[in-house]
Amino acid sequence: MTPEAARALFPVLDRLAYLNAGTFGPLARDTVASVDEELRSDLEKGRFGRAYFEQMLGRRTETRAALAALVGAEPEQVSVTGSTTDGCNIVLAGLDLGRDDEIVTTTEEHFGLLGPLHASGARVVAVEPDAEAIAAAVTPRTKLLALSQVLWTTGKRLPVQELREQTGVPVLVDGAQSVGAIPVDAAGLDFLTISGQKWLCGPDSTGALVVADPERLRVARPSYFSQIGYEHSGSFEPAEGAARFDPGWISSATLAGLLTAVALRPDWAFERAAERSARCRELLAPLVDVVPGGATLVAFRHDDPPALVARLWEAGVVVRDLPGTGLVRASCGWWTNEDDLARLVAAL
Amino acid sequence: MTPEAARALFPVLDRLAYLNAGTFGPLARDTVASVDEELRSDLEKGRFGRAYFEQMLGRRTETRAALAALVGAEPEQVSVTGSTTDGCNIVLAGLDLGRDDEIVTTTEEHFGLLGPLHASGARVVAVEPDAEAIAAAVTPRTKLLALSQVLWTTGKRLPVQELREQTGVPVLVDGAQSVGAIPVDAAGLDFLTISGQKWLCGPDSTGALVVADPERLRVARPSYFSQIGYEHSGSFEPAEGAARFDPGWISSATLAGLLTAVALRPDWAFERAAERSARCRELLAPLVDVVPGGATLVAFRHDDPPALVARLWEAGVVVRDLPGTGLVRASCGWWTNEDDLARLVAAL
Repeated sequence: MTPEAARALFPVLDRLAYLNAGTFGPLARDTVASVDEELRSDLEKGRFGRAYFEQMLGRRTETRAALAALVGAEPEQVSVTGSTTDGCNIVLAGLDLGRDDEIVTTTEEHFGLLGPLHASGARVVAVEPDAEAIAAAVTPRTKLLALSQVLWTTGKRLPVQELREQTGVPVLVDGAQSVGAIPVDAAGLDFLTISGQKWLCGPDSTGALVVADPERLRVARPSYFSQIGYEHSGSFEPAEGAARFDPGWISSATLAGLLTAVALRPDWAFERAAERSARCRELLAPLVDVVPGGATLVAFRHDDPPALVARLWEAGVVVRDLPGTGLVRASCGWWTNEDDLARLVAAL
Repeated sequence: MTPEAARALFPVLDRLAYLNAGTFGPLARDTVASVDEELRSDLEKGRFGRAYFEQMLGRRTETRAALAALVGAEPEQVSVTGSTTDGCNIVLAGLDLGRDDEIVTTTEEHFGLLGPLHASGARVVAVEPDAEAIAAAVTPRTKLLALSQVLWTTGKRLPVQELREQTGVPVLVDGAQSVGAIPVDAAGLDFLTISGQKWLCGPDSTGALVVADPERLRVARPSYFSQIGYEHSGSFEPAEGAARFDPGWISSATLAGLLTAVALRPDWAFERAAERSARCRELLAPLVDVVPGGATLVAFRHDDPPALVARLWEAGVVVRDLPGTGLVRASCGWWTNEDDLARLVAAL
């Protein structure tokens, strides 16, 4: 598949310079067709029957395999969730931390991570998103590092594996802006969240949680999928592997859409996304104050980000502002072409 | 709308005697069309823009209002969830119970309730699903009654309001088999879960949680929707009302589908469903051992439920077995007609 053929998968790119996969990826025609086909079957054949349930379970298994392959994990380490927030909540609830425990995080995390940290009851220590500052904040009370692999603000990358190794503290990695955007290796990471709807271009409310050692995390939010047998008291025998953390039903249609989206990714996706992001930085550098970053998010400073975002929107260029930061953010994917970037530059 | 016109909304009823709303309701053509329309818009226009987000938020507000109206609650008391399991987990995590606390439940609850009870760490006391037995199990340590309003096994109704009043213990009511099936009044109930995909005939992964007093339950599983402002530590100012418990993103398409499904319900829905269920019992009584029950689930004993369910499936009659109980269950809705019941009887 050539870059131009790949691009033609996404109808939204026909009309817009869509540079916002950091929020939602573009949807491919085939992805929506997969969802549609299943919905039509549900409508006409009903949502029941052995074949129906077997297909749904099979798609869960396929989803585990596809996402595991993407990050170098085992399928048994993958829980199929609805979002990265879901994943963060599952981990924090299961760790049973208390007020005497500390979590080290950064001052530039998304609420999807911060909310669960706060809800855990542990003391949250937020430091500058810098490897030295993070390592220096670790104390004997630190039970978890909770870090984005790529910051949603500036796109800066954090050396999560190295920090895990250096500090010896378990790490929860928010992969919302890394998985699907840059090569990610789950090896050495205790917990890794994945978003299906951003860089993987999947349907809404899809995602995953990779748990290196499922046996060692308590199932704090059980669903029917968590168990293979239970007592009247609710005490249960957990399902094998990370499937025990699956937080609930996901329609066969949604799973089919996610699988199609992942299967459509060309092998040159990472290389091309990196090249496009570098090109975006290069084109923007003479025009605006681009902040340093090493992934597929390109952020730059502006006096009035909401006004600029609205003005670019009028010009058919989709970027977003990051409230409270003075930053505007453009997301470059493997589908981004020179014309998209030219439109951004022209509109600026 | 006449019963026959209402029935024609559901294509699956053209081919099957679909008696399984207790698992998944039939989908109406208009419900799927609403989902499809939004999906197409997401495909072509992208999932972004002020209008896009405002529409999504507006649909959340409409969903709260529609479901509140159905159970006599205020919209501010309704959290939009993905399932009844979601609702149970949100409540149990937020109550912060421990090993010294007790929860009284019944021996016929679904794992979607039991799992969260167990995960809470409290002692779970399961008694026969009988009002006297439930009241008798309450001790000074009892912090919660956790009860189905209609048992998913036999369809028996439990007097949840009366038990709340009599014992003075807060009650979590699993409304999976009641809301949409029989008239339900949330008044006097501390927590009530709603399924969108069963008796309301909505899309997969839809539901709600009614919280009588949102200020008094801790937000244990925060999502971006939970807050209207937050600190670096994750400490946050909660959103108004039960919206603070909203566990995550739900696509505008899914919300549109649920709203369409709820709007399609005729005003005679409850009356007709009750009449159809009574008729089903009447027709089955001479043939099989029907167990007592007072709602829209009709359960009967059989020597080999899985074999019977498979045989009925071959005959185009969709019912389910209830593993471990020796029961087969038929769900009768306002869309069920005489022909559906005649097919069930003939196949038996």
